[in-house]
This record gives sequence, structure tokens and C-alpha cells, in this order.
Amino acid sequence: MNKNTTNKLKILNDPVYGFIRIPNSLIFDIIEHPYFQRLRRVSQMGLSNLVYPGANHTRFHHAVGCLDLMQKTVRVLRVKGIDISEVEENALCIAILLHDVGHGPFSHALEHSIVEGITHEEISLKYMYQLNEVFKGKLSLAIDIFTGKYHKKYMHQLISSQLDIDRLDYLKRDSFYTGVAEGNISSDRLIAMMNVVDDELVIEKKGIYSVEKFLIARRLMYWQVYLHKTSLVAESVLVKVLQRAKELAQKGEAVLASEALNYFLRSKIDKESFDKNVLKVFSQLDDFDIISAIKSWMNHEDVVLSYLSKMIINRELLKIEMHDKQIKNQYILLIQDKVKKQFNLSDSDLDYFVFTGEISNQAYNKEQPIKIVSKKGTLKDIAKASDQLNLQALSKPVTKQFLCYPKKLI
Amino acid sequence: MNKNTTNKLKILNDPVYGFIRIPNSLIFDIIEHPYFQRLRRVSQMGLSNLVYPGANHTRFHHAVGCLDLMQKTVRVLRVKGIDISEVEENALCIAILLHDVGHGPFSHALEHSIVEGITHEEISLKYMYQLNEVFKGKLSLAIDIFTGKYHKKYMHQLISSQLDIDRLDYLKRDSFYTGVAEGNISSDRLIAMMNVVDDELVIEKKGIYSVEKFLIARRLMYWQVYLHKTSLVAESVLVKVLQRAKELAQKGEAVLASEALNYFLRSKIDKESFDKNVLKVFSQLDDFDIISAIKSWMNHEDVVLSYLSKMIINRELLKIEMHDKQIKNQYILLIQDKVKKQFNLSDSDLDYFVFTGEISNQAYNKEQPIKIVSKKGTLKDIAKASDQLNLQALSKPVTKQFLCYPKKLI
Amino acid sequence: MNKNTTNKLKILNDPVYGFIRIPNSLIFDIIEHPYFQRLRRVSQMGLSNLVYPGANHTRFHHAVGCLDLMQKTVRVLRVKGIDISEVEENALCIAILLHDVGHGPFSHALEHSIVEGITHEEISLKYMYQLNEVFKGKLSLAIDIFTGKYHKKYMHQLISSQLDIDRLDYLKRDSFYTGVAEGNISSDRLIAMMNVVDDELVIEKKGIYSVEKFLIARRLMYWQVYLHKTSLVAESVLVKVLQRAKELAQKGEAVLASEALNYFLRSKIDKESFDKNVLKVFSQLDDFDIISAIKSWMNHEDVVLSYLSKMIINRELLKIEMHDKQIKNQYILLIQDKVKKQFNLSDSDLDYFVFTGEISNQAYNKEQPIKIVSKKGTLKDIAKASDQLNLQALSKPVTKQFLCYPKKLI
Amino acid sequence: MNKNTTNKLKILNDPVYGFIRIPNSLIFDIIEHPYFQRLRRVSQMGLSNLVYPGANHTRFHHAVGCLDLMQKTVRVLRVKGIDISEVEENALCIAILLHDVGHGPFSHALEHSIVEGITHEEISLKYMYQLNEVFKGKLSLAIDIFTGKYHKKYMHQLISSQLDIDRLDYLKRDSFYTGVAEGNISSDRLIAMMNVVDDELVIEKKGIYSVEKFLIARRLMYWQVYLHKTSLVAESVLVKVLQRAKELAQKGEAVLASEALNYFLRSKIDKESFDKNVLKVFSQLDDFDIISAIKSWMNHEDVVLSYLSKMIINRELLKIEMHDKQIKNQYILLIQDKVKKQFNLSDSDLDYFVFTGEISNQAYNKEQPIKIVSKKGTLKDIAKASDQLNLQALSKPVTKQFLCYPKKLI
Repeated sequence: MNKNTTNKLKILNDPVYGFIRIPNSLIFDIIEHPYFQRLRRVSQMGLSNLVYPGANHTRFHHAVGCLDLMQKTVRVLRVKGIDISEVEENALCIAILLHDVGHGPFSHALEHSIVEGITHEEISLKYMYQLNEVFKGKLSLAIDIFTGKYHKKYMHQLISSQLDIDRLDYLKRDSFYTGVAEGNISSDRLIAMMNVVDDELVIEKKGIYSVEKFLIARRLMYWQVYLHKTSLVAESVLVKVLQRAKELAQKGEAVLASEALNYFLRSKIDKESFDKNVLKVFSQLDDFDIISAIKSWMNHEDVVLSYLSKMIINRELLKIEMHDKQIKNQYILLIQDKVKKQFNLSDSDLDYFVFTGEISNQAYNKEQPIKIVSKKGTLKDIAKASDQLNLQALSKPVTKQFLCYPKKLI
Repeated sequence: MNKNTTNKLKILNDPVYGFIRIPNSLIFDIIEHPYFQRLRRVSQMGLSNLVYPGANHTRFHHAVGCLDLMQKTVRVLRVKGIDISEVEENALCIAILLHDVGHGPFSHALEHSIVEGITHEEISLKYMYQLNEVFKGKLSLAIDIFTGKYHKKYMHQLISSQLDIDRLDYLKRDSFYTGVAEGNISSDRLIAMMNVVDDELVIEKKGIYSVEKFLIARRLMYWQVYLHKTSLVAESVLVKVLQRAKELAQKGEAVLASEALNYFLRSKIDKESFDKNVLKVFSQLDDFDIISAIKSWMNHEDVVLSYLSKMIINRELLKIEMHDKQIKNQYILLIQDKVKKQFNLSDSDLDYFVFTGEISNQAYNKEQPIKIVSKKGTLKDIAKASDQLNLQALSKPVTKQFLCYPKKLI
Repeated sequence: MNKNTTNKLKILNDPVYGFIRIPNSLIFDIIEHPYFQRLRRVSQMGLSNLVYPGANHTRFHHAVGCLDLMQKTVRVLRVKGIDISEVEENALCIAILLHDVGHGPFSHALEHSIVEGITHEEISLKYMYQLNEVFKGKLSLAIDIFTGKYHKKYMHQLISSQLDIDRLDYLKRDSFYTGVAEGNISSDRLIAMMNVVDDELVIEKKGIYSVEKFLIARRLMYWQVYLHKTSLVAESVLVKVLQRAKELAQKGEAVLASEALNYFLRSKIDKESFDKNVLKVFSQLDDFDIISAIKSWMNHEDVVLSYLSKMIINRELLKIEMHDKQIKNQYILLIQDKVKKQFNLSDSDLDYFVFTGEISNQAYNKEQPIKIVSKKGTLKDIAKASDQLNLQALSKPVTKQFLCYPKKLI
Repeated sequence: MNKNTTNKLKILNDPVYGFIRIPNSLIFDIIEHPYFQRLRRVSQMGLSNLVYPGANHTRFHHAVGCLDLMQKTVRVLRVKGIDISEVEENALCIAILLHDVGHGPFSHALEHSIVEGITHEEISLKYMYQLNEVFKGKLSLAIDIFTGKYHKKYMHQLISSQLDIDRLDYLKRDSFYTGVAEGNISSDRLIAMMNVVDDELVIEKKGIYSVEKFLIARRLMYWQVYLHKTSLVAESVLVKVLQRAKELAQKGEAVLASEALNYFLRSKIDKESFDKNVLKVFSQLDDFDIISAIKSWMNHEDVVLSYLSKMIINRELLKIEMHDKQIKNQYILLIQDKVKKQFNLSDSDLDYFVFTGEISNQAYNKEQPIKIVSKKGTLKDIAKASDQLNLQALSKPVTKQFLCYPKKLI
């Protein structure tokens, strides 16, 4: 027995994959960094747990899950004769580990209320630069892969494309924790079918049905889970709560919040102004700040704020109607009118209780095709290789309109 | 504790569903009957275990799995207010339990070599009549449901339709035992979404994605598993072996076989001649007769028979080419010519080693639509309800041609 | 199709059991009550997610899981001839649903720092009385079963005994979410083996190995998961943080906290003083209050509070030593001395950084035996029925000592 | 994409582990050899499928499962600094792949009726020598490891010891296919805990509960599955059938059987006479020979043979009584007397219908201890390291007596 062996901390239990091995001490130290530990307090699926009570897994778990899949992918590609150096493997691992580190609390929902005009990918990149300083340049190659600057283009595709490691993990993991078994995909098989041709990530021909299955599963997860109408109304109300709080805060009214949340309520942060100092405050922000604030706002004297806050905490949400077509203005006006009278609301407050929105999903994006390689080595877009499924139809974005308003309308 | 209670034999372990409860002693006695016990010796997936080594489950297990799902279905429908009497429940259970009892060894492959012009469903019905005599008329209602004579039409749809209990079990079970996780379907969710409207079995609207997923999973199982090219060539060779044995037997040559197999090799049995006595012999036939005979034929003096037999037993099969289009005659002739010379074969024997075939699968059959019911109670064909997936495309049968010939052709 | 049928809200997805059906509208309304919804914000396993990142499931999910198992149990017992009325079934469901409703945030860890001298079971009972008022006496029978007053004694055993529904769910669920597959138990089989003899809950003889397996699995979960040394030190530090905050608060210093937490920091609540009003405040308390407060305390000017708070949030915990025997005083003194000097601490502050504790687990409690019934109906304590496993040895409580102190001691 | 890469045949689907990779072409060719392919026709669990209908997996699947676990084990040990060369890895893989190749049909049951005084391990070794000739000496190191001659003793322990790869696979696999979830073990965790100290295979201390769990799971599988009373009586009757057939054959009576089975019925083969030629005949023998013969014997004119044969095929077995203590002679005589009269049997034939037997299982064998290594590197027998479980008690062999006789005794 070699003495300096397995640090027990280097293996993590994962109900999805069994064990996840942390390959080396640099990656271990990145995971230990408070910037990464914060992800333990950011749920992967926002308020979906109001519908699927098992969906409490975190971005932390998703990120280390991606790390695991990336290691498997590198092993598969090497067996197929693709040359990947240890340095490159490490960079791929770091890039996928950090690809989502910029997510704020409740993820997507808050991208447009806490900050404005800056995506979580851009914030992830800011984190990477910051960590690259901490770790003395050891993240440079990971950053080049993440930003698509590295000459091996397929490595970027592993991080970000229609069939990237991110999707392979989150679909499998979200399906597992929600218990929506039909969203389950075989990440192992998809990885086993990966190859690289002309510096492009491709899928071998016998994996064609698995790719189709993956696209259908992803679509099912979108409509059945991610865009489930109860999650949707919950996240919409959440955005409204924060908008209201921000409105009050910026008028100078007292709005109880953690220091970090308070900062974002009182400031207007966009891409320009999001500098190192903002990043530091942002790093203190997680789901706990938001929920705690909303809990305290249940007793706020502003009726709009308190009413919306109670909706979230007690799970007594607005009613939501889904429409396949544009909702008629007349109908909206009718509802607005009723609500206004029944609840005695001003015009400006009305928008917090009656509002519309749009959701959209595109099952397949032809702009960034998934490529299938035949035994002879020729490449084909899956949308053409699969003549039966009509992926052409699947590439048309599907859009739905929704309308929210109080239940118990007389 | 009531003394005369749970007979321990009335629960079966099932790795797929956990426990299967046998609901009463009539059904227990049917299962105990040698006609049903025979299914323990008929594999569900024929020679697929040559590709998927875990696929050794039997028709017995599939049938009791269906029994379990049928009980769950009845429970769900009753909760939704559908009135199903105990007598009807029992008949449904018996009908699904026996729906496949007429399968011969290696199922589909032998439907056209052992017997001719009679389907396994027709043989199942013969078994039911026979068992109805044994059990003194207690199977009459089950038979009526099975044959579609019972006035509640939806009950027949539970036994036989595009979304019947049979498919819900075999897809899940075959996916489980092959390890092709992507074929897994959520039978529980599909059952939970079932309802009955205007005496038709329908799926509630929120189950629409699950139905799509089910259709895609089934299609994947067809192309990836059931019609896997190695299974295909194995089953084709199996048919050839039996044809050759039959040819020799009918010429009066000695062909070692069990009594039952011998009977079918020497007789021409079709729908007309398949009477009670034939049924009795048929009941003695299972996978063991076939494999044992083939093992003995490995040393038969007829070179064609011995050569083909070795292919099956030692898993040294013919080469198979799959083509999307009609294979050119010229190409086939070329191959035939080569094989004939290299192996020194007569024209008539050549057909055993070089042959073509066709496989086909239709993911969705518009003739017997799966109907979706909206909240308001209106019915729609899934092919219309699902505007995105283009089920229209999926209803076009897909056909492939294949060509088999010896490996190691010079 | 009956129109007033399945309210879609009455089925919950559960990755562990598939679907959980909420049997009726009374139970549905109890679940919707804010008292019960609070459990969505109380994690089942406290800080175990610092070791097992998947362990983020909540007390809400555990409680509805119990509801599911209780329904299955009633179904099994009825098949065996045990007479259980619908009213009783409902009461059993409510009793198990609410058995843990009195848990505070981070459960056990905080039972002795937030409140004193009152157990979570006692608080659960207070909730039940309160809800009984809300629901106009419909919980009375559930309360009688919960408190053991109902004349059918075995019903209380289903709620609370060595093999109660609570354990059947939490062991399975915790094993599932941690990914410690070895803790998995077959709740279905154990339930299938249940029976009632002389008003006692018993296990049929053929379930003897399953009971043994259950006891071993539970023991494994204790030592490997619940008492994992990293969880242990995390929860110990958590208690210390709250003690320090309470100390400061009661000295009159400013300690940021939610209104509810603030109340408990500033008051001394014990069994006597825990009245309706306290219950109301308690109902506003969950994991979010605690973690948010600790996050804010990371910058508190009290060095002890801030230092301990950072330990939790950044997962940089104290070192922990486990000992099988009593730890020698001399050794503790040595450590204390070192820490005091190195960190320049006062005697009273030292206790926050160097402390000992004891953990204990008893795999089997002979005082409340699990009884096995033979085919002839005679009862035996499992400890005697299982002659091989030596359950006698398993009934000896195992106790370990631990010592915590700062890492990086010179 | 490197052209000469992944031969698609080199990955096998396994529902238990996902994918199994065949590491190189030598091992691929061994698997393709008819000697190994035969294992596809030998069921792993004999007649257990009469009780557990899912248990139809084969020795082929078990052997390739072992191959998979061995590769994982080598990977783990290398990470811990144990030096294993590629040549050694390959030998380990071959040794575990072939460790059971000598099993005859229905495994253990027939070890003493088809052949005598030679174990399946000895036959496995004969196969290895034979294959070593075929593969020109490439199996020599595997043979040395298998026979314990190689100087690295721990490698033999991986092939054969109380915690060998064989057990890690068969317990997990048998639990999976029977659906007895409680027998499930975490082979991955046990492998992750393996190490080598002083040339001994050891388990790291934190794996102690997993080892205990493994021992309990194994014991449960023995009593609940492998020695289930219905399997037991089925296998006992199977042995009786073959004894009777042998008796008749050796008297010169006609007994229909395949050529290979016929050979063994008419000859007396023991260790001495089991030479190359016998091995060749043995290689043609599998489950299909046995079941086909028994099916034909159902109509044999010898009443004893036909009656016993029907028992197996129609699953109408003898009654079996299990006793913890020696069964009293008087009681046996009483039964014998009744049966003799009721069925009008001669004294010598009586033994085929009334017989006793003994089964025994030892949960832990102290002679070949499982060793636990502490962090400091000291070794301890698990029986001592685990003070709570009383493994001492588990090392006492448990023995049960059984008595079989016809049902429906008047």
C-alpha cells in the first residue's frame, strides 16, 4: 500500500452515477473555493420543487456530475485514437466544472431582475478570470476552451453545443430527481457514440436513434417539467416580487434584505458596471437570501409586496392559463378590469397581479447541427440522417402564451 | 390474523415491478396449468440474447407482468369513475394473461416454418377455448373481450391496440433485460393518464408527451433491438435451418428431433388442420426442442443442415448487409456467383447461404389512432394533437432490405 | 369519463416510489396548509449534504412518502383479513403524515439550542391539536392513534415502533438521495410480510431475513451517513454558532436574524412556555432563517461568531477525532492549551473551538421487540427467532466519543 | 477519427453495469470460442427460475460481468499505487473470465450425477489448459494466477477468496435478476475500498460496514434464494431423474438422450478418466440436453422416470419439509410406509420419492479471513474489527435437514 493515496475527500457519492472521482488536487482546490461552494446553495431547478418535490438538487451537484461525464468522454475518445493530452483533459474538466458558476439564485428567473443585460455565461467567465488569478494562471487553457479560442474546436463543442456534457448531465439528473423517468437519457451510450472528425464532435451512425431519443426526451422535459405551468407561474411571481422590492427600494423605502441582496435591489447593474467588486457581492448571493427576504416581506406594509410574497411561501399561486395562440387583448382587458375592481388596485399595481408572458422551446437547432458520421467517415446533419423523425419539424420553435391572474375571481 | 390467508405462492418477485400479486385462485390455477407453464420455456425475445446477453426473459414473465399492469389499470380507471365489475376485472386479467399463450418457440421467426398460415393470436384463441373447457366456462367473458365481441369495446383495446397493456409491458421489460435504457417507458404514467370516453380508451391531454415518448421508444427498440442486424441474421438462419430440416424430413431422410418437433417437420399444418390434437402436440414444443435438435444437426451428414446449425450454436453467423433501397439484382447475382464457386454449391442449396429479406416498422398506425381527450372531453387523434412531432411522418412505414451471405468471401 | 375526477394535484411524482396518490381532499387540504408547507423548507438530513451532495430532500417529501407506504400497508393488511375501516385508514394516514411536522430547522441539531426540554414529537402533537381546530375535529382519531390512546394498539406501532412506517420511508429515501446504495431496504417486502396478531404488529416468519437486513442497513446508515464525522462536526459547529448568537443576544448585543429566529434567540422557551403563540412563531422558522443568519454573521464583529459562521458556509470545519473509548483528560487539556495560545482565546471562548461529545447508536432495542409470527401463529422476539445473527450483540448500544478542535494546529 | 478502432462487438450491454468493454482481441477471441459460447446455454441459477421467474441469466453473462469488475478493480488498485503490469491485468481478466467455464448444465446439482469426484474448478482448469494450446501459451500466466502459483498471492485472492470478484458479481447479478433487492451489494464501493498490503488483498477500514453488509446480503441470498425450498426440491428431483436415467441406461435400457448426455449416462466418469476426449464431449453438454431429455422421458415406460420427469416440466414438485434438527427416523419410516402403500412402490423405487438431505451455509469462514487495514497500516480479521456484529456467530455453519415426499398423501 502506497501511503499517500486516496484522500477520502476525493470521491463523492452520487445517486445518479455512483461515485464521482475528483481527479487531482487543483480541481479539488477549485471545488473547495467559496466561489464554487456557493453553488451548494443554488438549486438547479429553481422553484420546480413546488411541483416536483424531489427536485432539490443543486448546481454544485450538476457541476461535479459534468466533471464525471467529461472524464468518461475523454476516456472514450482516447480509446478511439483521439489524442488528448493530460493538460487538455484537465482544462476540459475545469471548463465544464465552471461553465455554470455564474448562475445567480433561482437561475434564469433572476437573470433579468437582479442584474440586467448580462448572462450567466458572462458572469461565469468573470469568475474564471478571477479564479485564474487565485490559481496563478492554471486556468488559462480552460478559459480558451470555454471561450472557443482554443484551436481544437471540438473541445469547445463538448462544453457548449446541442449535445454538450452540460445537457447530458442536467437532463439525466433532473429526470432522476423529479422522478419523470421518461426524461431519462443514456448519457453513457451517447458518450460511447462520440467521436471527432475534422475537428468536429460527431456521433457515430449507430447512435442515431439515441440522439433522436435525446432530443425527444429534452423536449418532454421542457414542456412537462421546466415549463410546467405551476413552475412557470411560481417563477413569474418570483420575478414580480423582486421587481416590486426593487421598485420600493429605489424609491427609498425600507425593504429588509441581506446585505448582498440589498446591494442589487438598490443598484442598477448591467454588463458595463459588473466589475470585480460587484462580483464579490454577487458571490454572497444565493437562494437563501431570496427566500429569507421574501419570508420577511410577507409582513411588509406594502400590500403588493406582502401579497406576492405569501404566494411564494405558502404556495398559493396565481391562476395561469396557457394559450397556443396570441391571447386576445379584449380578454386580457376583461380580466384586468375584474381584478382591478375586486381587489381595488391602482393601474400600476395591477401589472403585478395580471400579466402575460411567452415561453418557447426549440427541440432542435439547425444552425448548430448535430453531426452523424457514417462508417465511411462522411458527415451528415442529424436532421437529414434521420429521415423518419422529421427533425425538420422539431427545429421549428414552439411558442406558447400565458396569462396569470388571481384565483377566486368572481 | 386470519388463518386462511395469503398463500405465499400468490406473490411473484419481478425485478421490473417489484412484486406481482396473483389476484385469485382461478387465475392461479390457469398459471399452474401445463399449457401456461410451457411459456417458462419460450424466450420472449428469440435469439436477441446473442446480441443482448441479458435478454433471457420468458413469455411466462411477460404474461404475468401484463397481469400486474392490468390490475393497476383497473384500479386507475375505477378511481376515475369508470364502472368495472369484479367479473369484468377478472376477465380482463385472464384475457391479457393468455393473449400470447399461442406463441411457439422463438416466436415470430417460426410462425412461418413450423406452421403455416396461422398466427399466434389464432393459436392463443384455440388455447383459450381448450382452457375454457377445463375451467368449466369461467373463461367465456375473457374470450369475448379477447375477440372483441364484448359490448364494452374499450376493454378489447386494453388487450389489443396501439397502446395496449401488452406493449406497455414488453417495451419496459425488454428494455430492462437488454439494458437498452433508452427504450424504457413509464408504463405507470401512461396508465395513470388512461381514461374511457364514449367507450373508447383514451389518454388525457397532459399525457401527450408521454405518448410521443412511448412511440419514439418503441421505434428505437425496433431498430436498435428487435431488428438489430445480428438478431436478424440469426433468426433468418434459424428459419433456414428448419426449412432444410423440413425439406430433408419430407424427403424421408432421418432428422433427429423430439417427438413434437418431428411431428411438425413431417406434417404440413395450416389453419384448417390445426385441431385439438395438433394443439396437444404444439403444447409440447418449446425452445428446448429447437436448440437441442439444432445441436444434434451440427453433425448431420447433410452439409447444408450441419453448416447452418453450427452457425447458430457457435454464433458464427452469415454476414448481413442492410440497404435503405431495393438491392440491385446484379449485385446479388455477383455475390451468388462467388459463393457458389467458393463453396461448390448446387443452385438449390445456394438459397440457404445467400438470401435477401425485408424488414419494416411503422412507428404509428393512423388506422387505429391513439386518442387524446382534452379537459373539455373532446377527442383528437394524437397525430393531430401533437403538432410538433410530426407523427404523420412516423406513420409512414419504414422498410429496409437485407442481404445475407457467408463471411470470408474471397 | 366522469367529469369530477382526478384533480391533477392529487398525484405527486416521487423518484423513490414513482407516484404518490393523495387519497382525499381532507388530506390534500392538510398538505396545503402553511404548517405543512413549511416542511418544504426543512431538509430531512440537516447538514449531511456537506458530505453527500445529493441529500437535499425535505421533511415534506419524507412525510408524503410515509403517506404512500401507509396506504400500501393498509392494503396488505386488509388482504390478510385485518379489518380496517375507512375512517381508521384515514386517521392512520393523517397520523403518519404529521408525525414529524414539529421538526424545527436542521432537525435534531437544533432541538437543544433553539428550544429546550421539548421534543419534536411534542411539538408535532401541538401542531395536530392546532390543525384539529382548523379542520373541526377531523383529526381526533389520528391524534388518539399518535398518542397511543386508541384501543387498537398495533395502529400506534405503525406510527412509532422499531419497524414503523417512518423508518421504512426514511431509510429507503435517505439511502436513495445520498447514493449509499447499501442502506437501501425493501420497504415493499417488509410491508408484504406485516400482519397483526393479538393486536400486535408482527412480521411473518419468512420475512425474518428481511428484518435482519433492515436492522443491519439501519446500523450502516447510522455509522456511515447520519453519524459521518464530517456531518457530525458540521452539526456540532452549527449548535455552537447558535449558542454563541444566543449568548450575545441575551447580553443585548445586536445579532441580525429573521423575526422568528430573533424571538428564539432572545427568549428561553421550554415545554411549559411553548404555547399557541410560540407555535405560531415556530411555524415561521425554517432552514432559510438559520443559513441566512449565519451568512450575515460571517461579518459580525464578534470574532467567535464570525469565525464559526464562516466554517459552516465555506465548509472549512474543525478537525474531528473519533475515539472508541473515553478520551483522556490530559489529552484534551493539551489540545486546549495549544489552541488557547495559538488563537489567543479566553477560557470561555475556548469551549467554542475545542469540545468533546458523544454519539451512540443501538441497532436493536430489546425493550420494544420486533415480533415474528410462525405459521402456527406463535410469536417470538426476532432476537430469539434469529439464532444466527446474534441480535443480542446488536442490542448493546455502541457509543463513541469525539473531540473537535481547529485544523492547522502547530 | 482513427479508422481501425472500436469494433462494435467489443461492447456488450449489461442491465447491471451498463456497458461492458472487452479490452482486447485475445479476450475477444476467447469469448468467441465455442467452449466459452457454451456458457450462453448454461443458466447461472439452475432451476431457481421456478421460484424467481426473472432468474434466467446465464454463466456467460456472469463471466463477462466478472471481466468488467476485474478491470475496475485493476484501475482502483493502480490509483492507490499498486503496480500491475498490462500483462498481469490481462492474465487477471482471463483467469476470472474462465474461472467457471467448467460448470456443467444446472451447475451444482449435476456435479455429482453426471460426473463423479471432480469439481467444476478442476474442469475449468482442464479447459484453460486446452485453450492455452489453442492460443499458443498466452494463457499461462492466467493459469498460474488461477492455481495460486504466481508469486503475487493477492492476485489469486481476487479470483478466489471470501471477497473475490466472482462473489461481487454473482450476488449483485442474482439479486438483480431475481428481484430480491435486499441481496443487492455495492460492488463498486467494495472495490473502491480494496487495497493490497504485504501481498494480501485487504479492505480499508472505512469499508468495514460495507463488508458486514456484504456478508449479511450473501447469507440472505443463500437462505432466501439459493436454498429456497422450492428450488431445493426441484434440484433434488432433477438429481433423482438423472440417477434413474443412469440406472436404466446402465442396465441397458433405452433412454432417449442427446449424444453427449447419452455418453455420460452410460459411462462412469471420475477425475482420473476425465481426459481430453471426455472434455470434448462435456463441451457439447448444456441445459438444453437435460431439459429436452427430461421432456422426452415424461412418456418413458419406466413409471419412476416418467413421473419424476413430469414433476420438473409441469412444476408439480414433491412436498418438502425443512427441519432445524435431525429428522427422527421413526417419522421418516412412517412417511415411507404411507407412500409405499399408496403408490405401490418397491423398496428400491421408494428412494426416488421419499428422501432426506442436508443443506448448510456458513456466512463467514474464519479460516480465510477478510482483512481490514487501519489507516496506520495494521491488519485485522473482520471478525475482530467488527465488534458489534458478532461475526464469530456468523462463522458457525448453519445446517438444515429436509425431507421430500409426494404431495396429497392420504
